[in-house]
Amino acid sequence: MDKVSLQNPVFATYVIAATIMILKAVSMSWLTVFRMMQVKGGFRSPEDLRKTPLNPAPDPKQLEPNEQVERIRRIQLNDLENLPFFLVAGFLFVLTEPTQMMARLLLYGYVASRLLHFAAYFTARSHDTRATFWTIGSLILLYMTCQTLVTALQ
Amino acid sequence: MDKVSLQNPVFATYVIAATIMILKAVSMSWLTVFRMMQVKGGFRSPEDLRKTPLNPAPDPKQLEPNEQVERIRRIQLNDLENLPFFLVAGFLFVLTEPTQMMARLLLYGYVASRLLHFAAYFTARSHDTRATFWTIGSLILLYMTCQTLVTALQ
Amino acid sequence: MDKVSLQNPVFATYVIAATIMILKAVSMSWLTVFRMMQVKGGFRSPEDLRKTPLNPAPDPKQLEPNEQVERIRRIQLNDLENLPFFLVAGFLFVLTEPTQMMARLLLYGYVASRLLHFAAYFTARSHDTRATFWTIGSLILLYMTCQTLVTALQ
Repeated sequence: MDKVSLQNPVFATYVIAATIMILKAVSMSWLTVFRMMQVKGGFRSPEDLRKTPLNPAPDPKQLEPNEQVERIRRIQLNDLENLPFFLVAGFLFVLTEPTQMMARLLLYGYVASRLLHFAAYFTARSHDTRATFWTIGSLILLYMTCQTLVTALQ
Repeated sequence: MDKVSLQNPVFATYVIAATIMILKAVSMSWLTVFRMMQVKGGFRSPEDLRKTPLNPAPDPKQLEPNEQVERIRRIQLNDLENLPFFLVAGFLFVLTEPTQMMARLLLYGYVASRLLHFAAYFTARSHDTRATFWTIGSLILLYMTCQTLVTALQ
Repeated sequence: MDKVSLQNPVFATYVIAATIMILKAVSMSWLTVFRMMQVKGGFRSPEDLRKTPLNPAPDPKQLEPNEQVERIRRIQLNDLENLPFFLVAGFLFVLTEPTQMMARLLLYGYVASRLLHFAAYFTARSHDTRATFWTIGSLILLYMTCQTLVTALQ
């Protein structure tokens, strides 16, 4: 059977995990937009102070950093530091033909760790809570990557 | 026929869209370099103030943010928030075997939306223009991702 | 033979290069964590000033940028601007069926250029040294991408 196919249950597991993570990443952009509209600020480009239908009453303060918006940007930057590498590492990992149970444990475990990391960051839980969820995800990513490298070197 | 192959017209459509987007992303780095050489500034690291063949007359002001350079950096950051996810989502989407017409519409539509977003951002058009092109691209990305997730769950 | 398979030596070459680059990228996050613990600062979120087991003596200065930490963050941002695009471009490039020698030259050459770029940036070598290694990697990436685009257009 073709390994890179939705008919392969292990590959389908990867596709489900990958698409959920992509939706999560893209949601951060929309959440940034939503927050910027809510606080009417947190903009970054000089031209964003022009009067337009979406910004009828421009004010220079709109270009100042706004913590409500910056928090989402920090969460998004954390996604950029992690998710693109997970998306490729997970794909290569399923090519090493792990068992379905192992694939589910690692791939869905990663998804869960990132959703919990988001929840902890979004609600400003303590650094230790956020760091714990990040660490779980990062260790899963490292494990899948090392496993794949070892298999490829054989 | 092998789905992940340049002989598959739908996959070739993805490869064309993906490589154009990669070239676009890498161009932003080169454009940043070009602008930094043009304004002789916008540097970020303390060691960039050392006298070298490429920087014969160092000046502490070279480490200050320069709007000419920062604009390209903002465009590039927007690419980082979008393109890696498109590259993976587009790949997984073509595995769901869309029609060639659908693949062309969505993949080339995304490419067009990003090139127009660049044109609007680079020339400092109003936020609303830039946001419109970003939104079109983001909706295409969300559609492809949701479609793929639904197919994988079946 | 299946092209997207670890049994294909050219594909295995890609997998080795890709996993090394992913490990490199993820290491930057851990290096940032390590540096933040070392200097007890360089934090970014207001909640990081709460007293926790990992931060028993909080101080508002911990939220100020710390050059030891910022250097790693700049290296990591450079990775984000380059590696996700290499990971996809390399994958698509091996689908164009390059010779094993060509694949090794380009893929391992890219890996070498990024490891040297890291060494130069980490030890604060002059901008020109760092820029040279970045340029080699970027040209390899551009070559692979253009080659793939031309093949897909045929």
